[in-house]
Amino acid sequence: MSYNIAVIPGDGIGPEIVREAQKVLDAAGKKYGFELKYTEVLMGGASIDVHGVPLTDEAIATAKASDAVLMGSIGGDAKTSPWYKLAPNLRPEAGLLKIRKELNLFANLRPAYLYEELKEACPLRDDIIGDGFDMMIMRELTGGLYFGERHTTEENGVRKAVDTLSYDENEIRRIAVRGFDIARKRRHKVTSVDKANVLDSSRLWRSVVEDVAKDYPDVTLEHMLVDNCAMQLVRDPKQFDVILTENMFGDILSDEASMVTGSIGMLSSASLNETKFGLYEPSHGSAPDIAGKDLANPIATILSAAMMLRFSLDLDEAADAIEAAVKQVLKDGYRTGDIMSEGCTKVGTVQMGDLIAERV
Amino acid sequence: MSYNIAVIPGDGIGPEIVREAQKVLDAAGKKYGFELKYTEVLMGGASIDVHGVPLTDEAIATAKASDAVLMGSIGGDAKTSPWYKLAPNLRPEAGLLKIRKELNLFANLRPAYLYEELKEACPLRDDIIGDGFDMMIMRELTGGLYFGERHTTEENGVRKAVDTLSYDENEIRRIAVRGFDIARKRRHKVTSVDKANVLDSSRLWRSVVEDVAKDYPDVTLEHMLVDNCAMQLVRDPKQFDVILTENMFGDILSDEASMVTGSIGMLSSASLNETKFGLYEPSHGSAPDIAGKDLANPIATILSAAMMLRFSLDLDEAADAIEAAVKQVLKDGYRTGDIMSEGCTKVGTVQMGDLIAERV
Ligand SMILES: CC(C)[C@H](C(=O)O)[C@@H](O)C(=O)O
Ligand SMILES: CC(C)[C@H](C(=O)O)[C@@H](O)C(=O)O
Repeated sequence: MSYNIAVIPGDGIGPEIVREAQKVLDAAGKKYGFELKYTEVLMGGASIDVHGVPLTDEAIATAKASDAVLMGSIGGDAKTSPWYKLAPNLRPEAGLLKIRKELNLFANLRPAYLYEELKEACPLRDDIIGDGFDMMIMRELTGGLYFGERHTTEENGVRKAVDTLSYDENEIRRIAVRGFDIARKRRHKVTSVDKANVLDSSRLWRSVVEDVAKDYPDVTLEHMLVDNCAMQLVRDPKQFDVILTENMFGDILSDEASMVTGSIGMLSSASLNETKFGLYEPSHGSAPDIAGKDLANPIATILSAAMMLRFSLDLDEAADAIEAAVKQVLKDGYRTGDIMSEGCTKVGTVQMGDLIAERV
Repeated sequence: MSYNIAVIPGDGIGPEIVREAQKVLDAAGKKYGFELKYTEVLMGGASIDVHGVPLTDEAIATAKASDAVLMGSIGGDAKTSPWYKLAPNLRPEAGLLKIRKELNLFANLRPAYLYEELKEACPLRDDIIGDGFDMMIMRELTGGLYFGERHTTEENGVRKAVDTLSYDENEIRRIAVRGFDIARKRRHKVTSVDKANVLDSSRLWRSVVEDVAKDYPDVTLEHMLVDNCAMQLVRDPKQFDVILTENMFGDILSDEASMVTGSIGMLSSASLNETKFGLYEPSHGSAPDIAGKDLANPIATILSAAMMLRFSLDLDEAADAIEAAVKQVLKDGYRTGDIMSEGCTKVGTVQMGDLIAERV
């Protein structure tokens, strides 16, 4: 079997971590009898440098024609990068927002869990960690404040800026269904996060989620206000199974959750539409300060590639093998700098990729 | 000297914690020669029970006519309380939003710091805590998404809800000035938090903050994206001095920050307008599950009362005395249940109030 994969190396550490993910994918392909054909697609700063825009129509067309998209990371250092002098819709991030919308990738899955082997990196106290935690954040990715109508005006010399947060019930229903579906494969609990004591959009969110919950009598639904959730992630992350929330709350809470695990360099993500199609990228950013130095941890991207095999290509066995290889490498004591601890062997980006590919 | 204080006991543990704060204020008054005249004002569920609305015009008038407002907490248990069957604008929280707007309390100060004596309650690892941390969150409180135009419509049977986030440059400037002013009295650093890579309102926010910063060459300004800030609060809270941000980001981040300290029962807050006038309330909520059981920690409210003396009544010496009394009580080993640790003496709400009043 052969599949077409659009590859977006992106900016910063993107190219080097994607390269290692491809290496591991190819090792899995050899073992499990499939072939991936890669087409490189420019996005973000890399695209601005060549085309003057963060994402071209051709790039979108190539992504659409593929079976799945594998991405590194986009964006540069806001302080020093020339891209940040450009108009907002010409900056690297605009490419990411655009591809999400164009490919209708409304369902963003971000697992956040504690690696037994990396417990020491967790910023929380031992008694809070307990037996560890394992959450899945289901973030709505193509609606809400980040895609609403916005404008800046000036009246009598006073500038005013407006952003709009809107959701209709269909947008809420489809992400809620995804959240409950995944809870069913996990610990059967959904925590829906909103600000229903203030926002109209949150009240609609809550009512639609309650409606969807009726089809899942085996899943427990709990509502939590976003400010409380930001506290609970620190106080007791063990309580969460699936966190279901809208775009902006999901942006903030998923980053908090991944930092709470202490292993942000290890966390993958998948952005899916109604079909099997998806875009896979690490949860972390482009880390321009360490780009090109063989220092970046490629594991989040490698695990994102495993998610791609599972969700978009139905290659579950190969996905399992990659995940097992990552676990084995950790057990064997290899670490990149970000997760290094005493008694372990420190390795670079390329060597980490080699070690995982060998174990697939 | 005599001052008029509007007192809003509110719901849940509100009445019992406010009572202890008044006890401590009266002890300070006796010692430092001032008198506080209290007028009780109903708000939240307590007002709904009597008047059918969470805040009456008379209540607003009484608050406006006072020198300052001291508040407990409002709201009940969303699961069991009859208030939550009411229309949103009739629920307890609507009273709090309304009084903030009516009294123009745009500047919300929330200190979040680690008590040396309560270090054990901090959820973070010792090496992250280091020498401790001490942040001040300056949250804009009367603009943004929580006060924007909102509506829910239905078209062809599909419901759609819209909330609006808007800021003009005057609203941003006045809160930024407050943020820089307070940084000047602290460690001279402002971290302004926004989502300027996506939102128009955040880009205006950033540009106005940069403008204000020009008048404070002695204060270092740093910009941080809200998703990153949610991470940094867990990874390294020591880096922050003053966090300056808009209403909703401030809601989420200040709750996260207070939980990171491990002492949410100890954290005060002040909501100020352009004059000396302010409303003072604990950072925590109404904890309906422990209401009326003499279990609540009154210290956050007592410290809010001390802030009231300092900011609204210019009674700095008395404010200092209350803060010193709180420290002394902790040193003497007294704890309410929420901050209890081995070797300490457990006391109830009333006894904690007595112990602090004695030490003023
Ligand atoms: C780059 C930015 C637009 C993006 C977002 O906020 O969605 C990023 O923070 C993310 O979470 O993927
Ligand atoms: C009760 C609610 C409206 C309020 C807010 O979100 O502003 C509360 O969470 C707070 O932070 O004071």
